[in-house]
Amino acid sequence: MVNRLSPKLRDPLQGQPLDIQGFEQPRALLDRIPEDLTSLLDLVQRPVVSATQFNREQLLQLARLASRYETQPQLSVRPLTGKILISAFYEPSTRTRLSFESAWHRLGGDIMSITDPASTGIAKGESLYDIGEMLNHYGDLVVLRDSSENAVYEMLESLRIPIVNGGNGTDEHPTQAMADIYALLKWRPELCDAQIDADKRIRLAIVGVPGVMRTVRSLLTLMSQFAPAFEEVLIITDEEAPFAEGQREELESAGLRFRITADMDRELPDLDVIYINKIAWIGDDYRELGSQYRLDENSPLKPDAVVLHPLARGDELARALDTTPHNWYFAQARGAVFMRMALLSTILKSFA
Amino acid sequence: MVNRLSPKLRDPLQGQPLDIQGFEQPRALLDRIPEDLTSLLDLVQRPVVSATQFNREQLLQLARLASRYETQPQLSVRPLTGKILISAFYEPSTRTRLSFESAWHRLGGDIMSITDPASTGIAKGESLYDIGEMLNHYGDLVVLRDSSENAVYEMLESLRIPIVNGGNGTDEHPTQAMADIYALLKWRPELCDAQIDADKRIRLAIVGVPGVMRTVRSLLTLMSQFAPAFEEVLIITDEEAPFAEGQREELESAGLRFRITADMDRELPDLDVIYINKIAWIGDDYRELGSQYRLDENSPLKPDAVVLHPLARGDELARALDTTPHNWYFAQARGAVFMRMALLSTILKSFA
Amino acid sequence: MVNRLSPKLRDPLQGQPLDIQGFEQPRALLDRIPEDLTSLLDLVQRPVVSATQFNREQLLQLARLASRYETQPQLSVRPLTGKILISAFYEPSTRTRLSFESAWHRLGGDIMSITDPASTGIAKGESLYDIGEMLNHYGDLVVLRDSSENAVYEMLESLRIPIVNGGNGTDEHPTQAMADIYALLKWRPELCDAQIDADKRIRLAIVGVPGVMRTVRSLLTLMSQFAPAFEEVLIITDEEAPFAEGQREELESAGLRFRITADMDRELPDLDVIYINKIAWIGDDYRELGSQYRLDENSPLKPDAVVLHPLARGDELARALDTTPHNWYFAQARGAVFMRMALLSTILKSFA
Repeated sequence: MVNRLSPKLRDPLQGQPLDIQGFEQPRALLDRIPEDLTSLLDLVQRPVVSATQFNREQLLQLARLASRYETQPQLSVRPLTGKILISAFYEPSTRTRLSFESAWHRLGGDIMSITDPASTGIAKGESLYDIGEMLNHYGDLVVLRDSSENAVYEMLESLRIPIVNGGNGTDEHPTQAMADIYALLKWRPELCDAQIDADKRIRLAIVGVPGVMRTVRSLLTLMSQFAPAFEEVLIITDEEAPFAEGQREELESAGLRFRITADMDRELPDLDVIYINKIAWIGDDYRELGSQYRLDENSPLKPDAVVLHPLARGDELARALDTTPHNWYFAQARGAVFMRMALLSTILKSFA
Repeated sequence: MVNRLSPKLRDPLQGQPLDIQGFEQPRALLDRIPEDLTSLLDLVQRPVVSATQFNREQLLQLARLASRYETQPQLSVRPLTGKILISAFYEPSTRTRLSFESAWHRLGGDIMSITDPASTGIAKGESLYDIGEMLNHYGDLVVLRDSSENAVYEMLESLRIPIVNGGNGTDEHPTQAMADIYALLKWRPELCDAQIDADKRIRLAIVGVPGVMRTVRSLLTLMSQFAPAFEEVLIITDEEAPFAEGQREELESAGLRFRITADMDRELPDLDVIYINKIAWIGDDYRELGSQYRLDENSPLKPDAVVLHPLARGDELARALDTTPHNWYFAQARGAVFMRMALLSTILKSFA
Repeated sequence: MVNRLSPKLRDPLQGQPLDIQGFEQPRALLDRIPEDLTSLLDLVQRPVVSATQFNREQLLQLARLASRYETQPQLSVRPLTGKILISAFYEPSTRTRLSFESAWHRLGGDIMSITDPASTGIAKGESLYDIGEMLNHYGDLVVLRDSSENAVYEMLESLRIPIVNGGNGTDEHPTQAMADIYALLKWRPELCDAQIDADKRIRLAIVGVPGVMRTVRSLLTLMSQFAPAFEEVLIITDEEAPFAEGQREELESAGLRFRITADMDRELPDLDVIYINKIAWIGDDYRELGSQYRLDENSPLKPDAVVLHPLARGDELARALDTTPHNWYFAQARGAVFMRMALLSTILKSFA
């Protein structure tokens, strides 16, 4: 055993951690966005189901709030003291659940978790409508993940406390998209500006399938609020029809410019941001799409290009990139907690 | 997606919620019962296993305390700060578990949950006696649900901290019955009075089987403490022998008057309260009993009759009744949290 | 039902509890060890993976801190307020999980639990390296139990917050061993002394297999820090080769003197302490070893001998011993919570 005690075990602080803590980056973002909480008042006590509910100003103010939380992680107040989160994950997930629960705890609230489908009233055939009615009396906010697209809408029929969609089937995952947008703005705070010079626009590629990946779907919706920031959005896929019906048209009418290609490596040298994901949830199972695409230390990335990934990752993203400046996905994961703090404290009108 | 954003999503507060919040009703109950906490002192640090442990005065004072909590849900103090609830649900249940946990959290306490039978020492063949001994050191109160009737008694052998029975097989579910009694008293505060005029007595029917349904068994036991309030108690069932051995005699000797019938619709026009349930737990499984009985918008209910149901419901209770004045089952579910707050804060002698 | 209400149910405080509360014993231990927290500073923000990480002085100071917590279980401060424990139990366990969680809650912290392997990212094939990176942002400390020996080392590669090994396969269970040492010192505070008279040395037997039982392995490692206290350590087993390769030599070079025997009853009359265990974890399953060994009311124990057991127990330890002075295993279980409080508050540098 003794020989297994690595130097790190003897002194875990000896190595320099990656600067994904990113104090400088959220600080710069905080300074870039003038505070104006009025736009957030429309979100108070409101359900969050779809990325389409947010406008540009709300996203900016939420990102500002997130950067405020990120630069002072130990809050001096606990604004959600006495408030109860019902964390209902009928589809397995640790990452998203813990991210929400960590955000809620940091704000001082208490949590009741439902993690085992078999332990729920659903096992007795109870409807989500009835479960929603019950939850009205048990807590102050619900986070729901379900493999069915309709679950959140069914529960909404009876729910009078706010609900946040934590992923509903192949449909949407709005808070993941908010974390993605926060990662983008934290990386380049000038993307917040109302006017962006042509040479400051970025070229972003999504390695994935917008029509069936809920994270991609929600992200594109939010990106459409920042359309002038994107010179071009590449969809890198080998699927024939990567968009859902009407999806591309709707996003283009909001100002995004798309190009679809199957050849990732040819495009990499000209890209500023590469968002990669391989998992598409279909009911209770998932498919891996685009399995030939893979980013690793040999990928021809621009020196200052960054990679985003919603995680968990598979083979498509090599661990060799973790210690390179291309790794912005860890900063993205870290920021997700603070963006969720921003959203939850907004809905409960309990800013720390 | 956009077209799915219903008006409610845009403004969830636009509709008038049902008055199941019932501020007026618990307020009236609070005024009806003179405060006298002395009867509750006998419950301090005591286990709660059976509905037979409670006398009339204790039930009134607990209902009074519940109505006090219901009329001021945001407590200004957190009397259970630093106290730990062990929430042990070896039989699947979300509703009861969350109701207890919500009550505990609202009083300010912390919680450790056991929800997965496979994750417990039982998987290694550990006895409940040993688990109880262990729990003495880990928390301040245990809530136990188990599909075995004996589990709570086995744990009690070694337990020195209080335990509350959250449902033990086909035997008892005393806190559900307390919530039911609270719903009755909240609906008609005059049922609290020591003397009740003959014309104020109510006619209550139970659609269910007292001999095998633990909720019904415990409820009848508590109702026997308020026997003068009931002109008659109907048992509506198609079972030949709905009572367990000696059960009817015991309840009748306490003053309840029973009649058994199989014809629900013939009786409905004369009933003040209809308590309906279909689920009977047998070991790890459940049976549906009386599946021909069903309440819906065409049921010949008296205009001011109310329906109670322990929930979760199946086909026996149509959702169409939810928006009618007959729906007192949502108020019943809501009140369950406050009645559990009353019980838990009494046992811990930590009234908020 | 009524006849099942035992006298205890009517008055649970009527019987005298066992003195496993042991106020006198931890008080005596507290007085025996001079306070000197400097040795504990080396543990601040450090991972705890192996019993080999601790020296004698640290163990004494942790035992002292544990005895301080045990003699004042209701703390007046909550030093871990706002701190989040990630309690990750990928191998089923209630006892160890609740012991850690109780310790953390008593110190005032919040908890997020992972109890269901299927609910984790592992189900999607996520590596422990990636999970560790994620957890950096979600909490302040991780407790990990996994049936794989390597899991804790894999997570350590990416983890920058402290981790505590809650049992890794057949390898180690250091906090159980710390609880065992605390039980020993609490029983005989003079074992803390630097010089121990020959006639004060104790004879301790382990009924178990050091090579495959993680609790035994970690305990022997810690005992080697107190080698002068043990006149002899008996290993009682019917295994041919009870030690792992090099294990015996390493422990003997630290000063422990071993003898191996298969005949328990012949040795019992001369033993001061008998530590008995039957369970060895092998991957996701366990084996029962030494099934012919059993302690019960007929075992020829010295009048003042004590029995230790990590629990949960099987047939090897009869319940008849629970009410005898030989029962120190309940005191051992109780003390585990306080020893974990000592360790956790040390790592977080948040002494209460």
